Amino acid sequence: MEKPYTYEVSSITIPSLTLESGTTLKNVDLTYERTGNKDGPAILVCHALTGTHIVKGTSEDRGWWDGLIGPGSYIDTEHFNVIAFNVLGGCEGSTGPASTNQHTGERYGPDFPGITIRDMVHAQYKALQQLSIDHIEAVIGGSLGGMQALEWGALYPAYINKVFALAVTPALNDYGLAFNHIGITSIEEDPEFQKGHYPPGAILKGLEIARMVGMVTYRTQELFDQRFQREKQNERFNVESYLDYQGKKLGKRFDPNSYLTLLKAMNSHDIGRGREGTEEVAKNYQCELISISYEGDLIYSPHYLKEFTQLVPKSEHYFISTSFGHDGFLVEFEKWGGIIASHLKNHYVQRVFTGSK
Amino acid sequence: MEKPYTYEVSSITIPSLTLESGTTLKNVDLTYERTGNKDGPAILVCHALTGTHIVKGTSEDRGWWDGLIGPGSYIDTEHFNVIAFNVLGGCEGSTGPASTNQHTGERYGPDFPGITIRDMVHAQYKALQQLSIDHIEAVIGGSLGGMQALEWGALYPAYINKVFALAVTPALNDYGLAFNHIGITSIEEDPEFQKGHYPPGAILKGLEIARMVGMVTYRTQELFDQRFQREKQNERFNVESYLDYQGKKLGKRFDPNSYLTLLKAMNSHDIGRGREGTEEVAKNYQCELISISYEGDLIYSPHYLKEFTQLVPKSEHYFISTSFGHDGFLVEFEKWGGIIASHLKNHYVQRVFTGSK
Repeated sequence: MEKPYTYEVSSITIPSLTLESGTTLKNVDLTYERTGNKDGPAILVCHALTGTHIVKGTSEDRGWWDGLIGPGSYIDTEHFNVIAFNVLGGCEGSTGPASTNQHTGERYGPDFPGITIRDMVHAQYKALQQLSIDHIEAVIGGSLGGMQALEWGALYPAYINKVFALAVTPALNDYGLAFNHIGITSIEEDPEFQKGHYPPGAILKGLEIARMVGMVTYRTQELFDQRFQREKQNERFNVESYLDYQGKKLGKRFDPNSYLTLLKAMNSHDIGRGREGTEEVAKNYQCELISISYEGDLIYSPHYLKEFTQLVPKSEHYFISTSFGHDGFLVEFEKWGGIIASHLKNHYVQRVFTGSK
Repeated sequence: MEKPYTYEVSSITIPSLTLESGTTLKNVDLTYERTGNKDGPAILVCHALTGTHIVKGTSEDRGWWDGLIGPGSYIDTEHFNVIAFNVLGGCEGSTGPASTNQHTGERYGPDFPGITIRDMVHAQYKALQQLSIDHIEAVIGGSLGGMQALEWGALYPAYINKVFALAVTPALNDYGLAFNHIGITSIEEDPEFQKGHYPPGAILKGLEIARMVGMVTYRTQELFDQRFQREKQNERFNVESYLDYQGKKLGKRFDPNSYLTLLKAMNSHDIGRGREGTEEVAKNYQCELISISYEGDLIYSPHYLKEFTQLVPKSEHYFISTSFGHDGFLVEFEKWGGIIASHLKNHYVQRVFTGSK
């Protein structure tokens, strides 16, 4: 029997969302991609800072986790229904600083309220409710997506079974805050930023620099050195041209206020905040937590996630050897995709068992 | 018998210095500090990027290596005569972009020629000749200073006995180039930089950001996290205030063109350049090389220096366990000062032995 396979990119509007700060946003759009077995159990994917909701994409335009998700793949779309939202505060279709404030008819710009990882999760929860998805088999994400995945388990344990948290830590540590601060300063001090009131579509050098600051944290020294080997073209080191290219590429597609909003949301990330600390959260974490750390991850040091995971009652932590560092969660699926698949297969096994009783 | 102890901060002018680029600089000033036993063997100290020639300083105003150098200390000024120059291209008294070009009567500014580590060493060699110092017992430096120390051994092996190279690699690797590129871009793209023609004494936000970029490479995540612990004051993370403070502090005292000149000189650092590669240089290195690497040094990874040192005929490499990372060479002297002292003592022992023959 042919399974009902769907692929859809669409948008949903949440009438009202009250943020942690107390501010209420009206008519919040969340754009999403939904793919796989329409009747299958749902998997929610949360994307990283500069990622989008296009995780699977199409054969012409592949998504960023195309290597992990698909028919017969690690996250098997013949079985699962995979959904991913563009994050709240983003700039790829969901409501964020570049959106129009329907109350004023103007772009939010710098008046867009500060948001937290928890706000992102609440927004997604509301959207899933409106989509009549009454249960999530697993939430999965890396980096900023991993922060959301961890918070999902703390906020809505009854709604989800499993949390896969990749390349993340229970709180953004001070070293991460430091790099974010350089990015934030570089944007905010760019005179063209104009306190956030730059013209729509403005390309800011400050954002390009912020992107470069990100890039040096995503991959390891080993990989930089292997790839570039101090080679030059026209008196410029290739690594310099590479960073410039990456900066410009992001500068063209990303709204600077949105980038700031997301960096500051990352800064807010602390699973123990207002909950009597990280240890208490871990001990009382009701979902099954499967966490994966990547060797050489500069900011999201493996030991933090390992220690947290070990305190969670139903949990497993994996450490992946790689020269990619933080970017490990975006590459080398053959190394760790099987971990996801096998933990998701426990789900089939349980279902088969339950079904045959 | 009282030993003749001197302390002097002075300046010397080199009439002419031809750079690697072919450009000739006239009347190059090098400011220096000279301390210790006036008649003792000379030790040359090379400073790091934002360091100065004031390595020992005075009791009111201590130098950056006061903990390493002094009467009875690891580098014993009762025995040795210690000299350190402000680096060529710097802005603390030596000729650099903020100096007046005597040919035009104007500030060099962005017209100051590009310099290399080898140019720095040649300038120091000329200055030492003029000071009638006909032999150097040891050259020592960390980071940019370590680059100079390594080059000293390659350029003037007959003039020196020992090279102590700390927290450095035989070439600046691509990961280092990447961080430098962010700093360079941040300065050059600051509109107030005006292609280097900013007014004298201008304080550039771009330099403050470049300094922050440096700061996150100097110390480890572990140290950042231990020190700041996500603590806040007035809604700002303490680590953010710390970086701002460090940025502003440097911004006030450092000339942006000089900072660029020194970063670009660091970029040129490759001991094998024009010499048939790093391995050949190592195998033919005639001085004794004592190298020290520091655990967690983000850019100057210990393995590069270790591998280079192992190829040098007379050599010893040391690895220092620390949570300070790159900054290890500026702190915890009790951990590694003894290494310096014991290798310098070989010198006494040899002298005594020779003397008693």
